[in-house]
Amino acid sequence: MEEQKKILCVGLVCLDIINVVDKYPEEDTDSRCLSQRWQRGGNASNSCTVLSLLGASCAFMGSLSAGPVADFILEDFQKFCIDVSLVSEHAQCVLPASVVISNISTGSRTILHMNRNLPDVTAEDFSKVNLHKFKWIHWEGRNADEQVKMIQQVVAYNSTLPQQQKITVSVEIEKTREPLYQLFPHGDVVFVSKDVARHFGFHSAEAALRGFYPRVRQGAVLICAWAEKGASALGPDGLLVHSDAFPPERLVDTLGAGDTFNAAVIHSLSAGGSLQEALTYGCRVAGAKCGFHGYDGIGEKFSNK
Amino acid sequence: MEEQKKILCVGLVCLDIINVVDKYPEEDTDSRCLSQRWQRGGNASNSCTVLSLLGASCAFMGSLSAGPVADFILEDFQKFCIDVSLVSEHAQCVLPASVVISNISTGSRTILHMNRNLPDVTAEDFSKVNLHKFKWIHWEGRNADEQVKMIQQVVAYNSTLPQQQKITVSVEIEKTREPLYQLFPHGDVVFVSKDVARHFGFHSAEAALRGFYPRVRQGAVLICAWAEKGASALGPDGLLVHSDAFPPERLVDTLGAGDTFNAAVIHSLSAGGSLQEALTYGCRVAGAKCGFHGYDGIGEKFSNK
Repeated sequence: MEEQKKILCVGLVCLDIINVVDKYPEEDTDSRCLSQRWQRGGNASNSCTVLSLLGASCAFMGSLSAGPVADFILEDFQKFCIDVSLVSEHAQCVLPASVVISNISTGSRTILHMNRNLPDVTAEDFSKVNLHKFKWIHWEGRNADEQVKMIQQVVAYNSTLPQQQKITVSVEIEKTREPLYQLFPHGDVVFVSKDVARHFGFHSAEAALRGFYPRVRQGAVLICAWAEKGASALGPDGLLVHSDAFPPERLVDTLGAGDTFNAAVIHSLSAGGSLQEALTYGCRVAGAKCGFHGYDGIGEKFSNK
Repeated sequence: MEEQKKILCVGLVCLDIINVVDKYPEEDTDSRCLSQRWQRGGNASNSCTVLSLLGASCAFMGSLSAGPVADFILEDFQKFCIDVSLVSEHAQCVLPASVVISNISTGSRTILHMNRNLPDVTAEDFSKVNLHKFKWIHWEGRNADEQVKMIQQVVAYNSTLPQQQKITVSVEIEKTREPLYQLFPHGDVVFVSKDVARHFGFHSAEAALRGFYPRVRQGAVLICAWAEKGASALGPDGLLVHSDAFPPERLVDTLGAGDTFNAAVIHSLSAGGSLQEALTYGCRVAGAKCGFHGYDGIGEKFSNK
């Protein structure tokens, strides 16, 4: 039975409209894109895509508007066999698109975000989840106050179970927003971003891990990826684990590379891999992903792992 | 019966994703829009919207992809009571979005167009149209070779009818693309843009009208709008007609102002207005339109005309 339990990712889904240009448009001009593609985005949503392509059974929990963009997104979730039964639709809200201008001449990405008027998942929403279906729950740090309450529900649930049946909790602290830092002590696995590390004045993954480790709960694993420098992790034994990056021959698309790394690490750890194995696998999958557009190539390269 | 005949506009429909900012985004940054809205766009499609808001019965002919954007667009056509029975759906094609960055601090509009892989309407498609349903057909200049053949079908149809029952043909030559200039001799009413006029070295609407008039068919009316300078027209009597612009108190949104002008002129002429009346009406409606976002305000202000 344990085998059929899923990995749940809680967080954001949005639409990315990616416009590929060979010259960044000057203000007040008309120009033509080389290509345009629509992609389901959002960290938790991207991680679900990768988990599914790697062969993990997973579910997404988050909020969605009604309307044509929501239809596109739901269809795309289904295409990747991601369970969306925990997605809540909000008929009155608009799901806006993030516009990405991707310049192939310079590799730059210019992103125009939109404020969402969609409510995040609340602890009350989460209280209705049948936790028995999940072996791992990952939170993309957003509305951290509520997210802490959700995690406490999992902790309470876990307290009734033998070790092997407990749900593993992971959290991602990616953005430099103060309220997110309260998530550090709430994950069995904590992903902290290079951005946050640098914001705190750390100049390497190792320094960040040593600096942040006192914030995590006893026994937790702290992981920090550092782009082309690979990724490092620190566990309860105090030993630093490291993997180099696996850059592709040609850098094509780095959008979602971090979400890919997180998913691959979660996949490996949830399947019983060691921390070193998971880290190396994360770097390998994320590196490969940067060599092609989108995520489909991951399935071809890694689904038999 | 004549009263129930419709105005048909043949041309493009697309999706405009309009991102309102207060500062044009620098390359390789993340920024946030003030607002974002989705709008059905395309010249012929916009003109239909305005015609309908002004109280004219109208139809759109063009091609559309399948999928969520097409659903959004069809719904929007229906919202404006525009007949879409001549819209052909192409299941394999993608309908891309034009991204518009609208800077409220400077009034600039930066547009990122996409190449469409949708086939334009052909003369063969058009041959299936029941011309008896229409009193006026307007072509947005695009695939001009085919469009000339369509117009010839109308000319042949007209030749069997008494003057009052003939279909009026109008064409719009907006873009500076050489193949479009073959449309000049094929309209009873020809709209030529300021862009095209300037491309030919004309510095005013009057100069453009005198310069281009030898290209139109005998008896035709040539019309040229010149933004804040208003619009002018030249008919077979050789008299120049002019209307000043009617700028709004505050310039809010100029997207589609030209399509609004065309629609208002067509609406007025098709209802029996004089050239002067039509021109003034066109400037009045287009000017008012620049004072609000989108087109809905046109209905409130002008539908009783």
